[in-house]
Amino acid sequence: MTGKLTVIGIGPGHPLDRTARAEAALREADTVAGYGLYLEHVQDLLGGKTLIRSAMTGEVERCRSALQAAAAGGNVALISSGDAGIYGMAGLALEMATAEGFTVPIEIVPGVSAASAAAAAFGAPLMLDWACLSLSDLLADWATIRRRLEAVAAADLVLALYNPRSRKRVRQLEEAAAILQRHRPGSTPVGIGTALGAPDQRLLLTTLERLCLEDVGMRSLVIVGNSTSRVEAGWFITPRGYRL
Amino acid sequence: MTGKLTVIGIGPGHPLDRTARAEAALREADTVAGYGLYLEHVQDLLGGKTLIRSAMTGEVERCRSALQAAAAGGNVALISSGDAGIYGMAGLALEMATAEGFTVPIEIVPGVSAASAAAAAFGAPLMLDWACLSLSDLLADWATIRRRLEAVAAADLVLALYNPRSRKRVRQLEEAAAILQRHRPGSTPVGIGTALGAPDQRLLLTTLERLCLEDVGMRSLVIVGNSTSRVEAGWFITPRGYRL
Repeated sequence: MTGKLTVIGIGPGHPLDRTARAEAALREADTVAGYGLYLEHVQDLLGGKTLIRSAMTGEVERCRSALQAAAAGGNVALISSGDAGIYGMAGLALEMATAEGFTVPIEIVPGVSAASAAAAAFGAPLMLDWACLSLSDLLADWATIRRRLEAVAAADLVLALYNPRSRKRVRQLEEAAAILQRHRPGSTPVGIGTALGAPDQRLLLTTLERLCLEDVGMRSLVIVGNSTSRVEAGWFITPRGYRL
Repeated sequence: MTGKLTVIGIGPGHPLDRTARAEAALREADTVAGYGLYLEHVQDLLGGKTLIRSAMTGEVERCRSALQAAAAGGNVALISSGDAGIYGMAGLALEMATAEGFTVPIEIVPGVSAASAAAAAFGAPLMLDWACLSLSDLLADWATIRRRLEAVAAADLVLALYNPRSRKRVRQLEEAAAILQRHRPGSTPVGIGTALGAPDQRLLLTTLERLCLEDVGMRSLVIVGNSTSRVEAGWFITPRGYRL
């Protein structure tokens, strides 16, 4: 009996933001692995399935358990919030499968990324060239991240910041804001989307100079505009360049 | 009677990649506006609806017609492929509504972006910091785009290239490849995804030094790895930094 592993981005948290492909893969799976909060987001599809839960930082073990279950013949879904390919589980699953010799078939199912979800909630800030950076230095070197922030800020790219801040990790966002302020006007729009898609979703539209770091938490995604971004009628817009 | 405009990203082209929210909005709409090919992608949901079609370059007129229909009381869906907020119709709709005084309610529905769809098809190339650039200089200045390419190449960001090449516009991709080659090894993986999600989808995995520009067309999205990206067991992977 051959099993398989499907790595699924379930979107930002609201059931309506899941794709038909993600839902079909979850329905067909006999085993679902994921961080507890993300399993809650797909609770309506979990009936009768074996669950592999683990803490947020247990992703390596969770991924290995999912691959082992698939290797043992299971139809296993490994879920990420947002898009599995953007700071999600897709990379770890493929790295681990090749490094540890799992030959089970793997499929990656894309989802609506947190950046896309936040952008839509605020308006249309990602209409021009943009970059996606994570401020977490758990797996990456802060000097590299800082160099990327400098490059992106100088090149006037709109910026989506993942993992901007946690209770213990507060300095990175402070440094990022300082770098951005050296390159962009204080009036540059900043959108803070927290718990996107969830019942407790919070959207806060502010500016670089008024950015209050305490408004940003573990479940936030921050979008910083470029020099042309503006707020009109409550919408955060980066104009594409049409002459209207 | 108050109408509304919903701007919808329908995903990369396959019906299974649409979200439940996008499908619900399309079902509720009485009028659907979109470029012909994208209307084909949602043909199963168009029965009995008024259609506003126009050519690819007719997006300004199409958007105005959609806003006018909504202002006249219609429940209008304006569709983009991929995510409406990434080089799609979300920005134009909001810009036009504010510039031309349309006060109709607008909602932006995010979708699976072409970058996410291509990444999932190739593996997990977007697992580290990345940038999203469009090589089209129809609405943007080529000097600015080139400066962004230089910055992104030097900062070792993975790169998703939208609008990389058309029949008439071939020089931009050539220049982009040359810039990237100055900063990254010739062996850097490059994925070319064409007609993503459609029945004629083509996926081509190559390298910077072997990149054949003729393989890239109007319907292609190109992903260029960073210095750590590699191909293993046929998967294009940018390792996140886990120690396995």
